[in-house]
Amino acid sequence: MNIKEIEGLQKRRNRQNLGCFFLEGYRAVTEAVLSGATIVQLVATETFVKTQEWQQIKKNYSSAYNKNAELVLLQVGDKSFAKLSETVTPQGVGAVIKMPQASLSDVVNDAVKAKKEGRFGLIILENMQDPGNMGTVIRTADASGFYGIICSKDTVDVYNSKVLRSTVGSMFRLPIVQSDFTGSEITEYLKSKGFNTVAAHPRGGESLFEADFNTKTAICIGNEAGGLSDEILKTCDTTVTIPMPGGAESLNASVAAALMMYEVRRKGEKT
Amino acid sequence: MNIKEIEGLQKRRNRQNLGCFFLEGYRAVTEAVLSGATIVQLVATETFVKTQEWQQIKKNYSSAYNKNAELVLLQVGDKSFAKLSETVTPQGVGAVIKMPQASLSDVVNDAVKAKKEGRFGLIILENMQDPGNMGTVIRTADASGFYGIICSKDTVDVYNSKVLRSTVGSMFRLPIVQSDFTGSEITEYLKSKGFNTVAAHPRGGESLFEADFNTKTAICIGNEAGGLSDEILKTCDTTVTIPMPGGAESLNASVAAALMMYEVRRKGEKT
Repeated sequence: MNIKEIEGLQKRRNRQNLGCFFLEGYRAVTEAVLSGATIVQLVATETFVKTQEWQQIKKNYSSAYNKNAELVLLQVGDKSFAKLSETVTPQGVGAVIKMPQASLSDVVNDAVKAKKEGRFGLIILENMQDPGNMGTVIRTADASGFYGIICSKDTVDVYNSKVLRSTVGSMFRLPIVQSDFTGSEITEYLKSKGFNTVAAHPRGGESLFEADFNTKTAICIGNEAGGLSDEILKTCDTTVTIPMPGGAESLNASVAAALMMYEVRRKGEKT
Repeated sequence: MNIKEIEGLQKRRNRQNLGCFFLEGYRAVTEAVLSGATIVQLVATETFVKTQEWQQIKKNYSSAYNKNAELVLLQVGDKSFAKLSETVTPQGVGAVIKMPQASLSDVVNDAVKAKKEGRFGLIILENMQDPGNMGTVIRTADASGFYGIICSKDTVDVYNSKVLRSTVGSMFRLPIVQSDFTGSEITEYLKSKGFNTVAAHPRGGESLFEADFNTKTAICIGNEAGGLSDEILKTCDTTVTIPMPGGAESLNASVAAALMMYEVRRKGEKT
């Protein structure tokens, strides 16, 4: 791909048409390489290829992939790289990566068996809009040992550069499905597969700390301003509320997701 | 204050010199009024003063404050307001508010007695830099019923507009100390007052879910990139680690703070 095409990946439409996205920064590229992501090509500035970090990336590349795998590099000037970058001080390295193709049915079928590998639980994001929150949910899901993430069709794009920056590499370690379904269609499907579907709601549900969870639990988190839709609330098996003995009326969506995932993890481990 | 002076409040130095800050948006101003914050003056556009929302703010104002309290209003044009605003689509209303003066000793002395009022626990932020994280910690501390927040001298300014936006009104409901002390000086002081000081660290500490907490607990959260300083780690009574059975090496700082505060709350209530 040439520099114009890569720049075009800043738009969701182009990412979807080409099936790939652009990731920047030394740490992020290293995580991608080490996790075995499908790298279409690397992009680096003339300055960056003279650094120790570049040698390290090349070294990781040849140990992570088949020795015969060709490292495709597009070398560009600092000014050209700045156009690709969405950060204030670009590090001068990035990668075009093929989007992992995780299908809803594959992820759900694998999640059922996942306890063996130490991971369990699914999180459904319905119409979450803030990329920072989405990135934080991905990072927390990975830390807590959740199996995977399923996004409703109206949720912010996972491959948005702000999401990528806040995941800190976690997105390559667990499947994330960008589905074509609404939140309630996803929960209906999960119920048919034997999952216990749990809606997070700021008021009126069972206390999170008293609720029971097993390894086949799917947590639903809604939009930052409006919460979950009425449709998904009606579909879920139970509604759970995080106690708020203080004065705030609600929690940040990524904080609510974290408290719920860790609680599922804690109780599920004992089942 | 005239519009130039209010615009100047975007700078931390001016906020400190004048002892006040600018808060914008209908919801934030309403929360400030209802919580009885000391409002120096309101600022609204000619368009905004014709709305229902403005009538509501005036109504809340006269019920929240002494009937004789004069509502000082600076009415400005849309373009002038846009200069004050740090959002893309300004709502056309804001308020200049006097910074609450919470001293470290007052907050700590009150926190000791706080269980009576249903709130307990302190959180210490050492060198936290991201305003969104800081705002989220304030909101979560309020929701979970924590008593107050103490910031080390190198922590991001609480009255930064990005912090204010992400607290969603919580900052008026609990004391926040912007201290002149380092993190370890704060923990030393808290220890002398009988607090159990707990460092959050991604590796090597006691599991959060196995640790014991009482109502006199102070949780320490560090910088996003570097964590807590060696000085504060040495000073704290115990180090606690949030289990990360998945692949991520760390959690977002505001997520770690939330998990710890809720755990202290949960165990403290039983003591």
